[in-house]
Amino acid sequence: MAAKRIEGKFQELVEGIPLNQLLGIRVTKRHEDGVTLTGTMRDDLRNALGTLHGGVTATIADAAIGIAIMSHHQPIRLAATVEMKINYFIPIVEGRFTARAKLLRVGGSLVVGTAEVRDAKKQLAAFATATYKYLRPA
Amino acid sequence: MAAKRIEGKFQELVEGIPLNQLLGIRVTKRHEDGVTLTGTMRDDLRNALGTLHGGVTATIADAAIGIAIMSHHQPIRLAATVEMKINYFIPIVEGRFTARAKLLRVGGSLVVGTAEVRDAKKQLAAFATATYKYLRPA
Amino acid sequence: MAAKRIEGKFQELVEGIPLNQLLGIRVTKRHEDGVTLTGTMRDDLRNALGTLHGGVTATIADAAIGIAIMSHHQPIRLAATVEMKINYFIPIVEGRFTARAKLLRVGGSLVVGTAEVRDAKKQLAAFATATYKYLRPA
Amino acid sequence: MAAKRIEGKFQELVEGIPLNQLLGIRVTKRHEDGVTLTGTMRDDLRNALGTLHGGVTATIADAAIGIAIMSHHQPIRLAATVEMKINYFIPIVEGRFTARAKLLRVGGSLVVGTAEVRDAKKQLAAFATATYKYLRPA
Repeated sequence: MAAKRIEGKFQELVEGIPLNQLLGIRVTKRHEDGVTLTGTMRDDLRNALGTLHGGVTATIADAAIGIAIMSHHQPIRLAATVEMKINYFIPIVEGRFTARAKLLRVGGSLVVGTAEVRDAKKQLAAFATATYKYLRPA
Repeated sequence: MAAKRIEGKFQELVEGIPLNQLLGIRVTKRHEDGVTLTGTMRDDLRNALGTLHGGVTATIADAAIGIAIMSHHQPIRLAATVEMKINYFIPIVEGRFTARAKLLRVGGSLVVGTAEVRDAKKQLAAFATATYKYLRPA
Repeated sequence: MAAKRIEGKFQELVEGIPLNQLLGIRVTKRHEDGVTLTGTMRDDLRNALGTLHGGVTATIADAAIGIAIMSHHQPIRLAATVEMKINYFIPIVEGRFTARAKLLRVGGSLVVGTAEVRDAKKQLAAFATATYKYLRPA
Repeated sequence: MAAKRIEGKFQELVEGIPLNQLLGIRVTKRHEDGVTLTGTMRDDLRNALGTLHGGVTATIADAAIGIAIMSHHQPIRLAATVEMKINYFIPIVEGRFTARAKLLRVGGSLVVGTAEVRDAKKQLAAFATATYKYLRPA
């Protein structure tokens, strides 16, 4: 799958999203069919069990799908999450984690994507599906 | 529905969870059948559209269900999220937002709950269902 | 909760849906905020474990939410399922089972509802959430 | 992807499931990492819009994942659906439709799979994720 380093302008846009900044989420790759976001474990991202809080995993998955949608269109189209479903497989303990998003279906008003979240050892830690709604007709 | 101010000790436990602290999520009520968590809009919790990021909504919903499970048992039982599904209805723009969790089904190894997320005007902003797995047999 | 026996005409419409006929699904109550559908266990609805197949549970839940949407509007508005999520709690073994649907959110283009599926003893057997999309603007 | 015609014995087992028989669902391929089930449009499987009822799509997707789990183990292990999520993309109008299931995560007590449902033209019509629970420890 072809992947290119993300352009400076797009990167800025994504990292300008306040919650991404707070959680340290960045775009690291842009693929033909989606994007990869990356985060890094920090103590303030932990849950009661001491591992990465599922809310952060859900955030990076949702963000990855949203950004895959934005970057699918020229010019960028904004969309809002209608619903998201995520399954958690193994806890993320430390190091870098990534969310690789792909679009499953681009419709006229709705668009659906998936995201695979992997831990520092590339193990599949979570899998999400999200439906977005375009904010304006094309 | 009976509700009592949350006891100091339980409060501490919940607010001791690092991500809750980072996002400013607190327990504000304990009900017969669940709990209510509360957060407050801040600029660093916004998404690309300027409203509350869905990741924060997902986090407070997931946290509320997890804490409803913990507080359902004496002594507290830890559980991990197996999967979560959330539907978003209206954007949260400012002020306080709450997540009211209830348990739908308490099984031997799995437990399922729902959370209603409401904005400062008490409008239903999101609805989540989550499945948790007990970390140890009872 | 006010409930009235379903009118003949509406009943006919619902039972005219081929799959409902095949599976024996009928509307048994119309509530202020939704509908109740009823089915009856038959041997040809069983799964590999000998209990009601989850596909039938999913069908009655989806149908109940769809019919709650149709009956919410005057005249009836058609809508198609965008996505559905269902949690299964206990197996349905025999007798009548019901799906009670409610609408959570009626938006301009999307509408979201829930359904509680109960067995013959009124125990909660499954819980579903579904998003529908209106086929035509109002 | 390697695929072999399904063996007679396994075929029998699957087609012996009563609801599969009622709906005409058969196993048509067994892959290294899952199975493909096939159904055929019939007038009694239609919804109010005249297309394949989403309940049938949900049934074939759920069945495909369940059978992928059964066929993953030697000897076969039974499992029950904990929850399922399905997104619908395009209506299925006629002819054969297939559900191709894969396992995403095989855990000690839970197992998660996905299914792609395609219409007669191989277009992606729906996508499902399901969590199953093993009925007995391995």
